[in-house]
Amino acid sequence: MEQITQDFINDVRDLLGRDQTRLVQSLVIDLHPADTAELLECLSSEERVKLFDLVSDEVAGAVLAEVEPHHRKDLIEGLDAGRIFGIVKQLESDDAADLVAQLPPEVAEVVFRRMDEPEAEELRKILEYAEDTAGGIMGWEVMSVPDGITAGQAIDEVRRRSSEVGEFYQIFAVDGVGRLVGTIPLHALVVAHPDERVSSLMDRNVFAVQTGMDQEEVAALVSKYDLVSVPVVDAFGRLVGRITIDDVVDVIEEEATEDIHRMAGTSEEEVPGESVLRVSGLRLPWLIVGLTGGMIAAYVLSLYKVSLKELLALSFFVPVVASTAGNVAMQSSTIVIRALATGELAVGRVWSRILREVAVALINGAVCAIILFTVTSFWQSSAKLGAVVGASLVAVVLVAAAIGTAVPMFMKRINVDPALATGPFVTTSNDVVGLLIYLHIATLFLTWLK
Amino acid sequence: MEQITQDFINDVRDLLGRDQTRLVQSLVIDLHPADTAELLECLSSEERVKLFDLVSDEVAGAVLAEVEPHHRKDLIEGLDAGRIFGIVKQLESDDAADLVAQLPPEVAEVVFRRMDEPEAEELRKILEYAEDTAGGIMGWEVMSVPDGITAGQAIDEVRRRSSEVGEFYQIFAVDGVGRLVGTIPLHALVVAHPDERVSSLMDRNVFAVQTGMDQEEVAALVSKYDLVSVPVVDAFGRLVGRITIDDVVDVIEEEATEDIHRMAGTSEEEVPGESVLRVSGLRLPWLIVGLTGGMIAAYVLSLYKVSLKELLALSFFVPVVASTAGNVAMQSSTIVIRALATGELAVGRVWSRILREVAVALINGAVCAIILFTVTSFWQSSAKLGAVVGASLVAVVLVAAAIGTAVPMFMKRINVDPALATGPFVTTSNDVVGLLIYLHIATLFLTWLK
Repeated sequence: MEQITQDFINDVRDLLGRDQTRLVQSLVIDLHPADTAELLECLSSEERVKLFDLVSDEVAGAVLAEVEPHHRKDLIEGLDAGRIFGIVKQLESDDAADLVAQLPPEVAEVVFRRMDEPEAEELRKILEYAEDTAGGIMGWEVMSVPDGITAGQAIDEVRRRSSEVGEFYQIFAVDGVGRLVGTIPLHALVVAHPDERVSSLMDRNVFAVQTGMDQEEVAALVSKYDLVSVPVVDAFGRLVGRITIDDVVDVIEEEATEDIHRMAGTSEEEVPGESVLRVSGLRLPWLIVGLTGGMIAAYVLSLYKVSLKELLALSFFVPVVASTAGNVAMQSSTIVIRALATGELAVGRVWSRILREVAVALINGAVCAIILFTVTSFWQSSAKLGAVVGASLVAVVLVAAAIGTAVPMFMKRINVDPALATGPFVTTSNDVVGLLIYLHIATLFLTWLK
Repeated sequence: MEQITQDFINDVRDLLGRDQTRLVQSLVIDLHPADTAELLECLSSEERVKLFDLVSDEVAGAVLAEVEPHHRKDLIEGLDAGRIFGIVKQLESDDAADLVAQLPPEVAEVVFRRMDEPEAEELRKILEYAEDTAGGIMGWEVMSVPDGITAGQAIDEVRRRSSEVGEFYQIFAVDGVGRLVGTIPLHALVVAHPDERVSSLMDRNVFAVQTGMDQEEVAALVSKYDLVSVPVVDAFGRLVGRITIDDVVDVIEEEATEDIHRMAGTSEEEVPGESVLRVSGLRLPWLIVGLTGGMIAAYVLSLYKVSLKELLALSFFVPVVASTAGNVAMQSSTIVIRALATGELAVGRVWSRILREVAVALINGAVCAIILFTVTSFWQSSAKLGAVVGASLVAVVLVAAAIGTAVPMFMKRINVDPALATGPFVTTSNDVVGLLIYLHIATLFLTWLK
């Protein structure tokens, strides 16, 4: 297991600087493409292009499939159409399509013209599928056999076609018109008697997905049923490709990143290497929503001008109440969002979930209120003020928990990604509603206790 | 592909209520264990036990491996030792160990006593590995062959042992003392000539992990190198088990959930079905940290008593400044935390990353400040107040971005999970530092502009 250490990187940079290309090649030749990709990402853009020129077309293709998207763009821009064609030829169809999709149209045209017609045709078809659907992530190379033959014949067929398919762990059985009728795990085929029929070996209970299915749904299926590869069929049930689990692993990581980014109030489009200006643009909308909420909060505060002036101490506790309510809402909404994403929580159980979160908030709010009461009573030498602030805190926290739970569940129901809820909506509504409740209750209590 | 619909659930509940066990069995018998698990989770606890009694030991084992942990506990409690022994016998070693680990010690003892000695011995050994290490998630059943035999002999060996290993996609070659020396993809074996030697077919560049490796590292390796299964070796390089990709998929989802929960200020131990009191306990520490920060903020505010009284309007904008700074810090820290978790960001590049985040914050802070200036100028009829609040906002936001970036990177460096950083530390330090800066700058400006 080769790891890219800092020493190794320094050696490569040093040798590249002295144009010792032979030595660099000998250092890099045994690396796994994923390690070569990692190495490339640690170099300057000049060194990167230099090193990439030294690897063979076959390795270059695998490296491009592994490298971070923004570095991939850089690398591709430095290549001529001939080299690109050489690389595309070495890739599996899904990776080839990803690569061609990133080429400038005129370069892509040159690559298409150099390809054989059937290959070019196939590639064009893949490119028509949306990137985040089963069709977009599938490979076209599938190991399929007619359902009428024997295990021995199937093994011969597998042997004959193995070079074109690459790795595979499952064989698909199709009927006379290419419809998928069953799957045979490779190990079952190995173990079977050569005269046994494929139709008796195969599992007819096939998990297949249609080309248009969202990649997140595909990932959920694969994860739920522990599949190593999923066949993809067209609208007529004909086998058109397969998705392997390594692509699914990428989807799962992508989707988790997407959720985390959205929860923080930025976009899944924010990737390393994006320009500062573009990142600013992606984050700004959420900040403006928050800012608007803050300004409404300022307006709310100004309405209570009189009581604030009368009891300046009340205004000191605005940040305490706001941040505690914010934390409680964040806890509830995050737990609900993740549970919805992993399928642990059904959207139908809104009320029981809200009750539960409010119960948790009641306990924690009470504890926080007691602490706040004690500190305030001593600090401001006024148990009355302490009681008022503490009681208001409990009320605000209960509302915060209810909002934090209800908003993501409501969003899920109307088919908006619940992860969008934590950032601006929950925080903002919390700020405004929380402040209103705090000031209203506090003023009421104070008047009443006077 | 069978899906658990609400109608289906209702039918099952109805039949269970009328004790039509035969009919229920016929409905459930063709379900995938993952679907049966989902169905069980939708039932009342009484119905759950009733239904679970109806499934065979073999299916029951697979269902227990799929069901949510807190439901698993419920189901196990309802079973006698005989039934548990029957189920354990049907499971692969890693799932069997997970199940036995959850049994009350006295029941586990009964199960152990009923088992054959070698099996019991093996199970005890697995139970010794920590749950979140390679040893804890691996299965002991591996398809291994001596490296000295031919492909034909290897296939015979595979055929002989296939029933005990279950699914497999790779064969491991071991030397005379059991050390792992190479891997052979199953399809390569199928395609090979029977007289070819295993030693010439195998890939000697083996990705193996040691039993003590953290499961998160294992997942990162599998995801990076697109592996379908990883062999596990002991300290002497002897093959002891393998981890399959479906377990890795579970780990990836678990780790993402863990990060998301920690970022929200709760614990990965918060699982559905946990009691309200326990959930409160898990969330409370973060709230108290936040509360402490808020109280320090209140103290900071009280220090500026005079200027606040003089210009009450200044206090209206405390929530705006605090929430905008909070949002900016959240964006920076989340992006950094996720990039550290997926390995996209190296911890060595602290300064360049902070600069970058501060640059983004400068642009967005400036835009927000202009909006705030405009609104404040008109609303409070004072361009001076608008300018002061706007300028302070920019300063606070820059500091927030720097804190949000630096804290998680620092935590990563001292080997504390950076996901812990977003919740309390960043928020609290932000509240206090932000407020100090805001009030200090605002008072300075106001005095200076007087």
